[in-house]
Amino acid sequence: MNRRDIVKAAALAAGAGLVAAPAVAQSAPQIRWRLQSSYPTSLDTLHGACVYLAKAVAEATDGRFQIDVFAAGAIAPPLGVADAVQTGVVEMGYTGSYFYIGKDPAFVFGIGMPFGLNSRQQSAWFYHGGGLDLLNAFYARFNLHNLPGGNTGTQMAGWFRKEIKSVADLSGLKMRIGGLAGRILQKFGLVPQQLGAADTYSALERGTIDAAEWVGPYDDEKIGFQRIARYYYYPGFWEGNSALSFFVNLDKWRELPARYQSILATAAMAAAQDMQAKYDAQNPQALRRLVAAGAQLRPLPTEIFLEAFRAAEALYAEIAAQNPGFKTILDHVTTFRRDGYQWLQASDFTYDAMMIQALRQRG
Amino acid sequence: MNRRDIVKAAALAAGAGLVAAPAVAQSAPQIRWRLQSSYPTSLDTLHGACVYLAKAVAEATDGRFQIDVFAAGAIAPPLGVADAVQTGVVEMGYTGSYFYIGKDPAFVFGIGMPFGLNSRQQSAWFYHGGGLDLLNAFYARFNLHNLPGGNTGTQMAGWFRKEIKSVADLSGLKMRIGGLAGRILQKFGLVPQQLGAADTYSALERGTIDAAEWVGPYDDEKIGFQRIARYYYYPGFWEGNSALSFFVNLDKWRELPARYQSILATAAMAAAQDMQAKYDAQNPQALRRLVAAGAQLRPLPTEIFLEAFRAAEALYAEIAAQNPGFKTILDHVTTFRRDGYQWLQASDFTYDAMMIQALRQRG
Repeated sequence: MNRRDIVKAAALAAGAGLVAAPAVAQSAPQIRWRLQSSYPTSLDTLHGACVYLAKAVAEATDGRFQIDVFAAGAIAPPLGVADAVQTGVVEMGYTGSYFYIGKDPAFVFGIGMPFGLNSRQQSAWFYHGGGLDLLNAFYARFNLHNLPGGNTGTQMAGWFRKEIKSVADLSGLKMRIGGLAGRILQKFGLVPQQLGAADTYSALERGTIDAAEWVGPYDDEKIGFQRIARYYYYPGFWEGNSALSFFVNLDKWRELPARYQSILATAAMAAAQDMQAKYDAQNPQALRRLVAAGAQLRPLPTEIFLEAFRAAEALYAEIAAQNPGFKTILDHVTTFRRDGYQWLQASDFTYDAMMIQALRQRG
Repeated sequence: MNRRDIVKAAALAAGAGLVAAPAVAQSAPQIRWRLQSSYPTSLDTLHGACVYLAKAVAEATDGRFQIDVFAAGAIAPPLGVADAVQTGVVEMGYTGSYFYIGKDPAFVFGIGMPFGLNSRQQSAWFYHGGGLDLLNAFYARFNLHNLPGGNTGTQMAGWFRKEIKSVADLSGLKMRIGGLAGRILQKFGLVPQQLGAADTYSALERGTIDAAEWVGPYDDEKIGFQRIARYYYYPGFWEGNSALSFFVNLDKWRELPARYQSILATAAMAAAQDMQAKYDAQNPQALRRLVAAGAQLRPLPTEIFLEAFRAAEALYAEIAAQNPGFKTILDHVTTFRRDGYQWLQASDFTYDAMMIQALRQRG
């Protein structure tokens, strides 16, 4: 029982005798929080996870724990959500942890590093592999507590104006891509650019940039990339999964009654499940529409994938040499990845491979 | 507001004036339910979903909505859970819907048909593909309401005493396998047997049966199949995913205050996310141990997969011709599967394929 609860309980005890106080009142203070997302409402699957969470929490508490949801920029800048949560400007944020690798590169593990786990493996690592405990010990230094809040699954590698056939074709290519992925591709002479949605569209349209990665079919279609770039590449090795975070201000988290902590954590897990399901239902339909509209689907040449994998390993080793905290999490997730991919070959991967063959024959 | 709420609200209004009744009390009646699982507590990942759900619901309601969890057989027989829920012997059950295809073959769609969706696709179909609404309209005829409650992912094809190299090798093979999968394999001369865990072990040990499918490495290891059969085959095409069900007695579901319905549905979604994560964290470790103990991993020959796929299609067409309700759901899920597998090839499947190659080179 925290201080706030004790005050409440004392106030209730003072009024005792009139009526048996329902047990529920002691752990059900009226609380109103603000949650800002890094995403506009138009990205309704990402931002929608916030709406889902707030609704579930309000329903579970009969509106006594109210979370007001704000879109990107309403209170803090889109890429400043973690800072706003850390300093208590808002109690909660919804964001991609890789936006904050400037604070510490270990922030990348909260969303998934390039060449990291796939979506199910990432959830397994979070909840039953020890990953989330490791991360929250790290985040505590920034006064943050992370509740994972959904996943996009493997993202697309993005829209390219020209075909890419070899590593050499990346040299000089100007591409909208950020973070560690940009640093990896720089090793092949690619010039990474950090741009928002509107700027990305016009830069690609004018040819100021040659390529842009965004999310996947459902979100990309709304931006309209299919009208201005012909080739749509897959998979985006920098986002084999992309796990979004509900960041909670750690002081505020600790002040919550245990009951509200439980409700919030359960709602976040349900929101996570719901969001992945929404992408998995919407992306197939959007992909069909994009291909019908003329998008040319292309797999990324395996050579590029493998060379970028080696470049990523080298980059991680460089960072780990200077940052022991990064190394601890890197080693942990790398072992989990090795074991996870061995098992995947005896389970879903082979099932999917055989199903793809069976469905092709079916026509 | 349902009848029970109205009675409660009237009782509260009669006592008004003494103290402002907290809004929460009106929607927080004291309720105690019984939930029986089809699984023993030793299957701690399956049965564990019940424990997870009950804990989340109790915490969210300060113990006012209490769900007592019972293992297989405590009240109703393991494969009679749906019946016990339907008739109100227990308010809730946790089970695999394919145990009830004797009532109607359409029960298979609640867990995933042989050659059906993979785990993420199944969740997408449930929550955002219209699948759960279709299913619950069907289940209402049996006074059941389904809240999906976790997934095993693709299961193993099981333990075989001899290697299987072609469809011909299935002829005369006695195998512990049930439901529609057994009916499909019967077309190749396989003799399906329906047995519980203990009987399966001793029958396989004595050679009364030649093969047995169970779940996956984590659960199989506990039974000890690695001691009595040499070959461990993958993937189990009959359970490309296996989605467990929390069945709720429909009358009881309708009587719940909206707040409790929301809490229960949210807890079930979180339990589902948690269970898949638990299997995905535990199976890789168990597989390593089984292989170290001498299990010979073998992929099912593609020929068998493809011929069984065609046999399944023929069987589904036969059933659909006699059962329009079955046909409606079959057509719906088949279209969803086609689109889902097209998208998978541009996303996780290719990412996983390239990662497997990269990790092999890494060593």
